[in-house]
Amino acid sequence: MINQLVKNIKKLDAPIVVGLDPMLDYVPEHILKAAFDEYGETLEGAAEAVWQFNKGIIDRTYDLIPAVKPQIAMYEQFGIPGLMAFNKTCEYAKSKGLVIIGDIKRGDIGSTSKAYAIGHVGKVQVGNKTYSGFCEDFVTVNPYLGSDGVRPFMEVCKEEKKGMFILVKTSNPSSGEFQDQEVHGKPVYELVAEKVAAWGDELMGDSYSYIGAVVGATYPKMGEILRKVMPKTYILVPGYGAQGGQAKDLAPFFNEDGLGAIVNSSRGIICAYKQEQYSRFGAENYADASRQAVLDMKEDLRQAWEQ
Amino acid sequence: MINQLVKNIKKLDAPIVVGLDPMLDYVPEHILKAAFDEYGETLEGAAEAVWQFNKGIIDRTYDLIPAVKPQIAMYEQFGIPGLMAFNKTCEYAKSKGLVIIGDIKRGDIGSTSKAYAIGHVGKVQVGNKTYSGFCEDFVTVNPYLGSDGVRPFMEVCKEEKKGMFILVKTSNPSSGEFQDQEVHGKPVYELVAEKVAAWGDELMGDSYSYIGAVVGATYPKMGEILRKVMPKTYILVPGYGAQGGQAKDLAPFFNEDGLGAIVNSSRGIICAYKQEQYSRFGAENYADASRQAVLDMKEDLRQAWEQ
Repeated sequence: MINQLVKNIKKLDAPIVVGLDPMLDYVPEHILKAAFDEYGETLEGAAEAVWQFNKGIIDRTYDLIPAVKPQIAMYEQFGIPGLMAFNKTCEYAKSKGLVIIGDIKRGDIGSTSKAYAIGHVGKVQVGNKTYSGFCEDFVTVNPYLGSDGVRPFMEVCKEEKKGMFILVKTSNPSSGEFQDQEVHGKPVYELVAEKVAAWGDELMGDSYSYIGAVVGATYPKMGEILRKVMPKTYILVPGYGAQGGQAKDLAPFFNEDGLGAIVNSSRGIICAYKQEQYSRFGAENYADASRQAVLDMKEDLRQAWEQ
Repeated sequence: MINQLVKNIKKLDAPIVVGLDPMLDYVPEHILKAAFDEYGETLEGAAEAVWQFNKGIIDRTYDLIPAVKPQIAMYEQFGIPGLMAFNKTCEYAKSKGLVIIGDIKRGDIGSTSKAYAIGHVGKVQVGNKTYSGFCEDFVTVNPYLGSDGVRPFMEVCKEEKKGMFILVKTSNPSSGEFQDQEVHGKPVYELVAEKVAAWGDELMGDSYSYIGAVVGATYPKMGEILRKVMPKTYILVPGYGAQGGQAKDLAPFFNEDGLGAIVNSSRGIICAYKQEQYSRFGAENYADASRQAVLDMKEDLRQAWEQ
């Protein structure tokens, strides 16, 4: 799957992933009304609204982007119907040729981590049959529990040729509370990065590893160091746009081959129609605003490279 | 909810939580057959088997124990039907007066962490109505992202009078890879514990905080230190039994009031009928074996206190 992701990125010349993290108040009135008319103000109604909202955005952006990253929490908050909308979104995006990065940030130990891996990127055995409970191509994984939490994902990813992005240095302001603590002169996130690189060596694709890392756009200097610590690791970079990361900060996350990083934007794209810059589209044409925001992000990144 | 948990523990004189972490091969043949006869070898069939298995154990143990801890990964592996079985299990256990600790180990930032909190221990707004997607009383939370990940859970828990257990020092062999790294002479897990104690001060119940901690039974010496770092924190202790923790190792996790810790056993109880010690019950009476295993665990803990 890492080979597929790199291929998509090269073909479209777009190291961009769209975060499908819909809050209900991102959804335009006409979609919300149709969903509530059909299902009432229920979890099913909310799930339908979210799904229709996503579908509109996928339909208007799939030819420009290599991947989407649905954030499962935004679906899980609506319980079972929400998770059904998550599944529907993943399946639909996949049918459009997109790579699916499930932002699930799971992490546990032994058989429990294995169960998460099987559920999201693998197949579960039921009697003589096997099924995929969810269907992502990549997932995000929390490293706090160490190798015991990561290895079960590695086993399943190896079998299925799927991948993961391990949290190294997250984009949020308080990420430093534990991640930046210095251990013999090295911050914890660097120790995690060294492990990610070592685990990644065991699971190589053609030019990059099936094991990637998450490093926030909001920390470009750390990105520069981490790029060197993990040369074969694809870096998923959140924090661009709404969280304050700028295009000029992104160069350190990339390798000289122009690859090695994929930049996420969520609100900036899915909620573009609410920004003054795109207000001309109107809520009815929210997906056209998202398309324009993707084009603008691509241009923004391109200009930053050229500087 | 922490007050309710403490009350239940005192009433039953049992600082015990049963981990409902069903693997399909834990489920006795007669339950599996009935479920597959009804739903086929499908995700629905697996979910039905897991739910019936859990129901049997709850029915035969609810009068002995204060709480259950379903591990969501074991349900998530069966996709949507599995998560429906998770919900059914939580609702049923609750109807029997048990406190529900959802072992979900979620953790993200800002609005995303809020969405998890709302989904599992809160209520989500849909139009003019509110719903609970899931219905746990406590959840486990991963601290790697710092305060940004924890505060949204605190907000929701405060509103709902629910609680959380934050991972401090996990029971698995590789937990030391990052958690034990020394920062100015103090391990990372101790820094996390200090934060847990500080967060906990902001959200106090009658005698203990709504914010608990997870510390593995497999690390009793660390338990002794962490007990002092977090005097008002309830400690959820996994790792007893199947993972190697013994009753004599548990004393340091408790305060002098005999409270302050709740010990989890999963396999040792739900899969008791497969152990030689309980084989006399037979697979048909697996839940009676579980009941006996709870009684034996209670006695095992009692003897350890008396030494």
